[in-house]
Amino acid sequence: MPHAIALKRNPAGASPFPAICAPLVGRTAAKLLEEVAAVAAKKPDILEWRVDFFEGIADAPAVAELAGRLKQLAGGIPILFTRRSSREGGEPISLTEDRVVGLYRSVCESGHVDLVDFEMGNDAGHVREVREFSRAAGIQLVLSFHDFQRTPPVESIVERFAQAQELGADVAKVAVMPQSMGDVLTLLAATLQASDRSRIPIISMSMGPLGGVTRVGGWTFGSAMTFAVGESSSAPGQMPIEDVAAGVAMLRRALGR
Amino acid sequence: MPHAIALKRNPAGASPFPAICAPLVGRTAAKLLEEVAAVAAKKPDILEWRVDFFEGIADAPAVAELAGRLKQLAGGIPILFTRRSSREGGEPISLTEDRVVGLYRSVCESGHVDLVDFEMGNDAGHVREVREFSRAAGIQLVLSFHDFQRTPPVESIVERFAQAQELGADVAKVAVMPQSMGDVLTLLAATLQASDRSRIPIISMSMGPLGGVTRVGGWTFGSAMTFAVGESSSAPGQMPIEDVAAGVAMLRRALGR
Repeated sequence: MPHAIALKRNPAGASPFPAICAPLVGRTAAKLLEEVAAVAAKKPDILEWRVDFFEGIADAPAVAELAGRLKQLAGGIPILFTRRSSREGGEPISLTEDRVVGLYRSVCESGHVDLVDFEMGNDAGHVREVREFSRAAGIQLVLSFHDFQRTPPVESIVERFAQAQELGADVAKVAVMPQSMGDVLTLLAATLQASDRSRIPIISMSMGPLGGVTRVGGWTFGSAMTFAVGESSSAPGQMPIEDVAAGVAMLRRALGR
Repeated sequence: MPHAIALKRNPAGASPFPAICAPLVGRTAAKLLEEVAAVAAKKPDILEWRVDFFEGIADAPAVAELAGRLKQLAGGIPILFTRRSSREGGEPISLTEDRVVGLYRSVCESGHVDLVDFEMGNDAGHVREVREFSRAAGIQLVLSFHDFQRTPPVESIVERFAQAQELGADVAKVAVMPQSMGDVLTLLAATLQASDRSRIPIISMSMGPLGGVTRVGGWTFGSAMTFAVGESSSAPGQMPIEDVAAGVAMLRRALGR
């Protein structure tokens, strides 16, 4: 059965199913502080700080401190900290992968975030390391996979979810690009299979214009979280948070939940 | 490619894709006249008169005349005339099938409706007859199949759409009941396949609470029409017209259409 995302460090304990997550993509501290206040006012369930957009990413102690200020302004909304690699659709950054891991360690040790997203395609040693220090800090680890070009077959997607679970993830995430509505069905079928089998919450989406239906209705097939735009999108196909919240609510009414 | 429903008798010529259709289920003429005004005010694209709910169904000339009064109150919104058989989820009626065909003939000849829905599971001779007189009157024929218990496999559903086309339908409709979200995927996969191949518009839905996502997003997989509640629902799982219209609009924005 599908699992909701548990938030060990958060008083609420578990996020709703599905959680609506809005990204923060400011390039400067000033911009991020404005952005977090504006986006938190729209009441997402989770805020994702996409730190690869942040110009000051190279200064790990400053990033950790800024995470604390974002947390203060987030009004209790949990924060997911994410460096998306340029290989998987993120912004190019100047840090070595060793320094990225150091950045994650600083942020986890600061205790200012609730979840971190790390790509399962990263170096296996790094994945183990991030798993260890995030667990030690009581922070949930999302292990993720993205394909901005295409949608792999159902079995490959299901295998990605299983791989994340084997690597010790608290949450497994797969985001893929459809080239047709058939690809959207593939992603939904994989979501249904994986959420039936998985011991952990899974997150999935078809990106781009074709995938809109998965951002609103993917949770009915087992996806525990959907990304929606507060102020700025962080990936193609994200819809406004007001739209996604309304769409989720109407499907919930239809389901009588 | 998916086709929109063409409305030969209507000035607009073609309905939007997807058309939103709201049912009229009044049991008396007085109730229907109230209902059509209230539902038309909500601006569905098509109104479906479910005549099997109507107590006066046995008097064909009176039904045809009432269709004319409904048309006057519909403010230009096209009317789909439907007797749903109790075998396929409709209300029990006292008419023989011969008299049902006579009723369809009176209504078609009156010219007060734009489309009629007839079940493809009816007697083959009756289907041919309804096809002939509806075509002579310039009225679109929807040939339909419903299963209120279960969802047949993809190939069976695709075959139903093909059968409707072979029987001369202007529009093919399949409504089935899911027992799981896997069944919902089956209906969507069949819709995608059939709409790719079909020369005519197709309509599909998964009914009941589980099928909500198909009522809002089925059109992105090729379904040309979705049923939504104006005042009263005519089948399980129909959502309010305001919700369906909002959901369709948000997916349309996501698709940039």
